[in-house]
Amino acid sequence: MKLKAKPLSLEAGGKWIVVLNEVDAEELGVKSLSRVNLSLDGKKVTAIVNTTSYFINSGWIGTYREVTSYLGLREGVEIDVTPSPPPRSIQHIREKLRGRSLDKDAIYDIIYDVAHGNLSEIEITAFIASLHMYGLSLEEAAALSEAMVATGEKLELKRKPILDKHSIGGVPGDKTTLIVVPIVASLGYTIPKTSSRAITSAAGTADRAEAIMPVSLSISEMREVVEKTGGCIVWGGALHLAPADDIFVNIERPLQIDPLLLPSIMAKKKAVGAEYLVVDIPTGRGTKVKTIGEANLLAKDFIRLGSLLGIKAKCCITYGEQPIGFTVGPALEAKEALELLSMSKYIPDLLDKACNIAGMLLESVGREDGYNMALAAVKRGIALSKLREIIEAQGGDPNIKPEDIAIGECKYTFRSTRKGVVLWIDNNRLVEVARSLGAPKDKGAGVELHKKVGDAVEPGDMLFTLYAEKEYKLDYAIKEIEEEGAFIGVGGYMDMLIQKVEEIPVYSRTFILER
Amino acid sequence: MKLKAKPLSLEAGGKWIVVLNEVDAEELGVKSLSRVNLSLDGKKVTAIVNTTSYFINSGWIGTYREVTSYLGLREGVEIDVTPSPPPRSIQHIREKLRGRSLDKDAIYDIIYDVAHGNLSEIEITAFIASLHMYGLSLEEAAALSEAMVATGEKLELKRKPILDKHSIGGVPGDKTTLIVVPIVASLGYTIPKTSSRAITSAAGTADRAEAIMPVSLSISEMREVVEKTGGCIVWGGALHLAPADDIFVNIERPLQIDPLLLPSIMAKKKAVGAEYLVVDIPTGRGTKVKTIGEANLLAKDFIRLGSLLGIKAKCCITYGEQPIGFTVGPALEAKEALELLSMSKYIPDLLDKACNIAGMLLESVGREDGYNMALAAVKRGIALSKLREIIEAQGGDPNIKPEDIAIGECKYTFRSTRKGVVLWIDNNRLVEVARSLGAPKDKGAGVELHKKVGDAVEPGDMLFTLYAEKEYKLDYAIKEIEEEGAFIGVGGYMDMLIQKVEEIPVYSRTFILER
Repeated sequence: MKLKAKPLSLEAGGKWIVVLNEVDAEELGVKSLSRVNLSLDGKKVTAIVNTTSYFINSGWIGTYREVTSYLGLREGVEIDVTPSPPPRSIQHIREKLRGRSLDKDAIYDIIYDVAHGNLSEIEITAFIASLHMYGLSLEEAAALSEAMVATGEKLELKRKPILDKHSIGGVPGDKTTLIVVPIVASLGYTIPKTSSRAITSAAGTADRAEAIMPVSLSISEMREVVEKTGGCIVWGGALHLAPADDIFVNIERPLQIDPLLLPSIMAKKKAVGAEYLVVDIPTGRGTKVKTIGEANLLAKDFIRLGSLLGIKAKCCITYGEQPIGFTVGPALEAKEALELLSMSKYIPDLLDKACNIAGMLLESVGREDGYNMALAAVKRGIALSKLREIIEAQGGDPNIKPEDIAIGECKYTFRSTRKGVVLWIDNNRLVEVARSLGAPKDKGAGVELHKKVGDAVEPGDMLFTLYAEKEYKLDYAIKEIEEEGAFIGVGGYMDMLIQKVEEIPVYSRTFILER
Repeated sequence: MKLKAKPLSLEAGGKWIVVLNEVDAEELGVKSLSRVNLSLDGKKVTAIVNTTSYFINSGWIGTYREVTSYLGLREGVEIDVTPSPPPRSIQHIREKLRGRSLDKDAIYDIIYDVAHGNLSEIEITAFIASLHMYGLSLEEAAALSEAMVATGEKLELKRKPILDKHSIGGVPGDKTTLIVVPIVASLGYTIPKTSSRAITSAAGTADRAEAIMPVSLSISEMREVVEKTGGCIVWGGALHLAPADDIFVNIERPLQIDPLLLPSIMAKKKAVGAEYLVVDIPTGRGTKVKTIGEANLLAKDFIRLGSLLGIKAKCCITYGEQPIGFTVGPALEAKEALELLSMSKYIPDLLDKACNIAGMLLESVGREDGYNMALAAVKRGIALSKLREIIEAQGGDPNIKPEDIAIGECKYTFRSTRKGVVLWIDNNRLVEVARSLGAPKDKGAGVELHKKVGDAVEPGDMLFTLYAEKEYKLDYAIKEIEEEGAFIGVGGYMDMLIQKVEEIPVYSRTFILER
């Protein structure tokens, strides 16, 4: 059937979508979400159909930007439209829906079609749901990683060996990467670190790093920085290392499920050429992984998947029941990391965690006593110098000082009304408050803790300070805390009562999608 | 946040959708597919968010037609926009994704949100996929039916008792309903029949009936017809008997899965007040249900689900390995049904099937020897008179004769090149050919068979005739048959070889969504 093009001012997020009048759709024998082949002057593309009763007149075909630009359409140009069978990958998705496991080729077909916009949200959702329900075998996970790498960009460094670290996330205030990368690079090793922005948290490592340097680099800019300095801290989102994964995340978020955690992480490591990897698994109430048993199972999967992919992976199970360091929020955290490396402040848990992870990496490549080697790199100031080199290579100011980093000017401090010790800090509530204050969007927003778990508290002692860039956000967060209580529990050392439940509680489940 | 309305000329198929600029979305802390509350002058609605980088400017909010009209928006009107938590039904969907069964209240929440446009396609897909994978308990199926009825329109007739029939479909040429309804109504019983249009088949009962009378009635028009004549044959799609199901079908079609078959059918029966029901389960290769064992399992589910819903259901397992009667295609089938009732043509399988089903219904309400009672209603001509009454009540011409029904004027007959008997008719291939000819959209398109399974064939005998309204569709169908072979197999009585498979065959699976 010949239809006249009507380019729409709509984008489909990389998918191929056209809009047909219902009359023409019926004539072609296609329904909403069926597919049609479009051809014009030898150029061909398959698009997913949306139908409308009035938005597009019969005889016309509405084209989203992707289709318009690929076929070079102008309004009124006649294109040839014929029905198209669904892609083969839908057969594979249906196999998985029936509980069968998929082979390498089938998985490649699916990932290729996801990455190239050939599958609708409905079809991708069915795939993710089936992975969530039936789980993935190790072979499926490896094939998924490999297919994601094959359909994306690769870093391809000349340096060897390549080291990398990853945290599965879930603990607020975790600025460890800002310490580990300069330590490792300062000792002559290569660590091309990509990081994500916050999705459900108060700050991702890319958000933190952005408070002191540009992080939205292209892959060739990243390559240049790493070849020069040995390290980098770059936002992974613009690099297209695993484009299929960016599409999966958009579907996993509303469903709050994440069956692709492992293959996605490992795909991105593989794409930068990592050979030695340490995965940090923060564990405890208020993180993703609640118990050490669970953490061990996950660690086993990482190590086994790594070995299939040619990555020597180790895992580091860390304490996650309270924030790392004293700050939560992009600028506050960047400042704290810089204070640690400048040795202007002592932040014992952050330093210990960073030296443990850097140390494991160093030992992976044959060094002995990695922990103390890492500690010495901080104490001798070479880690700080390396960070300044990286900041400069990424286009930032290498002479930046902690006090140059802008923190929100609206602030408010909560003080304790009682004497006791800090019994707990509720990570999830703290993150909610930080987000109400404006984090991660408002870089200067966040929370500074003055006490941590086990610290003694006197009446009138400062517990924490809220920072916001906007007054109304500060007011909102204060109101929230006044209504729902603080996220820090102070009590007598042996107090047993945590909470009285006297009516049916509202069930609120925190889902942390950050990888 | 205050944003200025920008009404879009887009419809969302009953869902509440708004488009935000990415900057405003970030400021609000919402992502694509999150939800926002909109309020204007005391009117409130929750909408699903789409984001764009340029289609809507910052400070504005694009509103789909549903939102525009509900809030009465004009361009530039300021509305209040705040983030909204996901609806509770998403928690329930996630429970089902984890394999837990859902209680009545949870199912009602989900169906309510589906019917009211509160869930995105991603969320509904996850629900359907989980039902497909884990299956439904009988209690869940009943709760689904009841929730669909509760969120839709009801017929509420004064007449009692109310009888109904249903075919799960899958066999081409099945015009049985056009015979059963007038038989049952002619004997003084009430049968308010709703039917569907073809989705993947060559004709649905609504398509067939439409060749002789209007079928797109409103629910009050339908009520009037039934109160007057005792029967009707009406398209169910415009009645909103189970609006959630219309949304489910749009998701099931591209995935080619149908976990809601039973609850959907039963919901629509319940909504018309059916108390006695006969379900036809066509069985055999080339239908939905391949074996008698399978058919029995399905029958058991229908009967048990019926008893939970207060419907006395019986099932009738029928032979489905070839079309019913000699014709496939809306007008051809309507003509054949009219010929049978006028006794101008003898169509033994159609008459037998209709009398069996009508007979079972009559026996359900206490009559004896239902089969012969039904047969007599045809032979005495009272079924034909009743059909003419119904045609008139629905707004058609009561004096219509078989030859008044327009059949496509482009035709072509295939003849046998060999001597033998008809060994098989491939239902799926036949349906493909009928659809290539233009059915169900071109009502006059279709196939007439001259031989059926077991008939003796001489070289030169007519096997089947193709009818189309458009020459190019006829040409296409002829080419298809010439390339892929006919859908009728003629061979010697004891020939054993069906097909030689000498290379990897293309796996083509036929999915029949018709309910």
